[in-house]
Amino acid sequence: MTGAAAPVYARVALIGLGLIAASMAHAMRDKGLAGSIVGHARSAETRATALEIGVVDAVFDTAAEAVRDADLVVLAVPVGAMGAIAAEIAPHLAPGATLTDVGSVKQAVIEAVAPHVPAHVHFIPGHPLAGTEHSGPRAGFATLFVNRWWLLTPLPEANAQAVARLEDLLRGLGANVDSMEPAHHDLVLAVTSHTPHLIAYTMVGVADHLRRVTESEIVKYSAAGFRDFTRIAASDPTMWRDVFLTNREATLDILGRFTEELFVLQRAIRMGDGQLLHDYFTRTRAIRRGIIEAGQDTAAPDFGRGAAVPPPAEADS
Amino acid sequence: MTGAAAPVYARVALIGLGLIAASMAHAMRDKGLAGSIVGHARSAETRATALEIGVVDAVFDTAAEAVRDADLVVLAVPVGAMGAIAAEIAPHLAPGATLTDVGSVKQAVIEAVAPHVPAHVHFIPGHPLAGTEHSGPRAGFATLFVNRWWLLTPLPEANAQAVARLEDLLRGLGANVDSMEPAHHDLVLAVTSHTPHLIAYTMVGVADHLRRVTESEIVKYSAAGFRDFTRIAASDPTMWRDVFLTNREATLDILGRFTEELFVLQRAIRMGDGQLLHDYFTRTRAIRRGIIEAGQDTAAPDFGRGAAVPPPAEADS
Ligand SMILES: NC(=O)c1ccc[n+]([C@@H]2O[C@H](COP(=O)([O-])OP(=O)(O)OC[C@H]3O[C@@H](n4cnc5c(N)ncnc54)[C@H](OP(=O)(O)O)[C@@H]3O)[C@@H](O)[C@H]2O)c1
Ligand SMILES: NC(=O)c1ccc[n+]([C@@H]2O[C@H](COP(=O)([O-])OP(=O)(O)OC[C@H]3O[C@@H](n4cnc5c(N)ncnc54)[C@H](OP(=O)(O)O)[C@@H]3O)[C@@H](O)[C@H]2O)c1
Repeated sequence: MTGAAAPVYARVALIGLGLIAASMAHAMRDKGLAGSIVGHARSAETRATALEIGVVDAVFDTAAEAVRDADLVVLAVPVGAMGAIAAEIAPHLAPGATLTDVGSVKQAVIEAVAPHVPAHVHFIPGHPLAGTEHSGPRAGFATLFVNRWWLLTPLPEANAQAVARLEDLLRGLGANVDSMEPAHHDLVLAVTSHTPHLIAYTMVGVADHLRRVTESEIVKYSAAGFRDFTRIAASDPTMWRDVFLTNREATLDILGRFTEELFVLQRAIRMGDGQLLHDYFTRTRAIRRGIIEAGQDTAAPDFGRGAAVPPPAEADS
Repeated sequence: MTGAAAPVYARVALIGLGLIAASMAHAMRDKGLAGSIVGHARSAETRATALEIGVVDAVFDTAAEAVRDADLVVLAVPVGAMGAIAAEIAPHLAPGATLTDVGSVKQAVIEAVAPHVPAHVHFIPGHPLAGTEHSGPRAGFATLFVNRWWLLTPLPEANAQAVARLEDLLRGLGANVDSMEPAHHDLVLAVTSHTPHLIAYTMVGVADHLRRVTESEIVKYSAAGFRDFTRIAASDPTMWRDVFLTNREATLDILGRFTEELFVLQRAIRMGDGQLLHDYFTRTRAIRRGIIEAGQDTAAPDFGRGAAVPPPAEADS
């Protein structure tokens, strides 16, 4: 324990013990934010690992047992699994408890979970804008959320005190907290994360299918651009399947705009319209500057949150 | 000078004094690979900067003057500018000199440059797979090429001794050298770099045009995926315009495959075909593993070439 704060919750139950849950657990422990931390995951193997590496104080074979007496329950499973778990745990949630989730999509989670939540439980949906392409309990680390956004999408009837208490916890993990409408969240994330991921998956798939270029050439001469795409495209297939299936409308909307725009550039290449290309590429630079100024990234392409790294060897042509 | 090697070339002339030329100059100086280094750039400002920060020993107002008496001439300007420069310098190239370039496209450079090259000069086209999204002489640094590939696409009639000597220099810069056919180079790069860059530019453009999401939201909640794209899309507009205009066929070929593939995934999202998405995302993981095993990247997403960095806070959903 490096912080001296009083615990924000006496007993936290993590349902799902992967990257996000384990990172929360490490940070809560470091900062003394939780009295005790218990959990449940689908497989006995993950439960055993989480216990062994000290992610949780205790594991339970069922989610229903895990949530008993918890004043905070966190759903940290793929988005598509949340509805069934909510139905299972609902009768076992303690009166006054807070139920939150960390799912990457918010409208679908609310639709799937909210109907099961008893009136005496505060359901406050959330989404940390932090992660890696790794998964499982061993992938977790305490600093994952430091200086990253954690978006909450509270329902209109949300209890202000319960929200404030959850925010205390999230700030304790190092996150910056913001609230927005669920539908708006899903659109923003479709632009900043979901569609880029689908595009990266696609580009890596194209490379994979190309017969005239061997896989070893792709791998050997993988330059920035593609190398970044492969990292993105290495993320967990189940998580991302669920993201696209549950944020379908917004993703399809953004994808439609993307192909429209891509066709404009493709035509400019075909027609030799250098002016259009140059103007387009000049405009996109401004957004990058904005992101660096907003502190969401550093000028150095190590994404180095605090890491001192020598000059980059990154982009390439 | 940190190395004690004898200079590989007595006098190197760099035409263009941006990121690539300046990085070569710093590395050649550090390793004692060149007797003297001179240069030319289009603007007086760049010439003055290059001289001031010690990239070159001398600058000349014209490329023709700069190449006089050089035994190595490096064309390090945007691909579209190389033909005119080759025409200008051709009469002034020393007998037995080697002429190389660092352009990101090879067939178009060969078509534009080769016709001007006198019989007594060795033209050996090349392309370092290393760069950043920054440009200009101040962006250069000596370690840019360390452990990166430098592809040569020598013509059938190339002089083996001249090629070997150039390879000595490039290895001296820290690069790994490989040779391939110009057309194959352009296809490989269309997959691993050019098309990914166009896609990144497009995605950033889509975000820029979206009215329902403010630019400040895009910037603030920019998550991995998108953040990586903005970095790629911050690269020099002139350089990239020229890349797409001169590698038109291969880029359009790969773009066609990309949209075809994207439509398959888009349809799967629309139809709710989770199995297809899951299978697709599972396959793309393998390529990533190959790249990490090939040492082109590290498992840590800092792209950390040798940098020790704490666990990543990278991908996101
Ligand atoms: N990774 C990111 O970048 C990121 C970022 C922000 C938000 N998120 C969201 O966070 C959530 C969890 O992601 P993660 O990265 O932590 O995933 P993860 O590392 O793959 O872990 C998922 C956990 O959920 C468990 N699980 C899966 N299906 C289950 C079920 N039906 N019942 C009970 N447990 C089940 C898994 O158990 P087993 O190991 O036993 O299968 C595992 O412990 C997802 O909703 C995701 O959208 C992820
Ligand atoms: N950046 C990368 O990631 C990368 C990687 C591999 C290969 N390359 C290739 O390397 C080459 C140079 O790229 P770079 O990144 O070094 O570019 P850069 O930093 O933008 O520098 C370009 C240099 O070329 C000069 N120049 C432009 N047009 C000229 C002309 N008509 N006559 C004389 N000089 C001219 C510029 O002079 P002013 O400053 O006076 O305009 C500047 O000194 C390009 O062919 C590119 O495709 C780039």
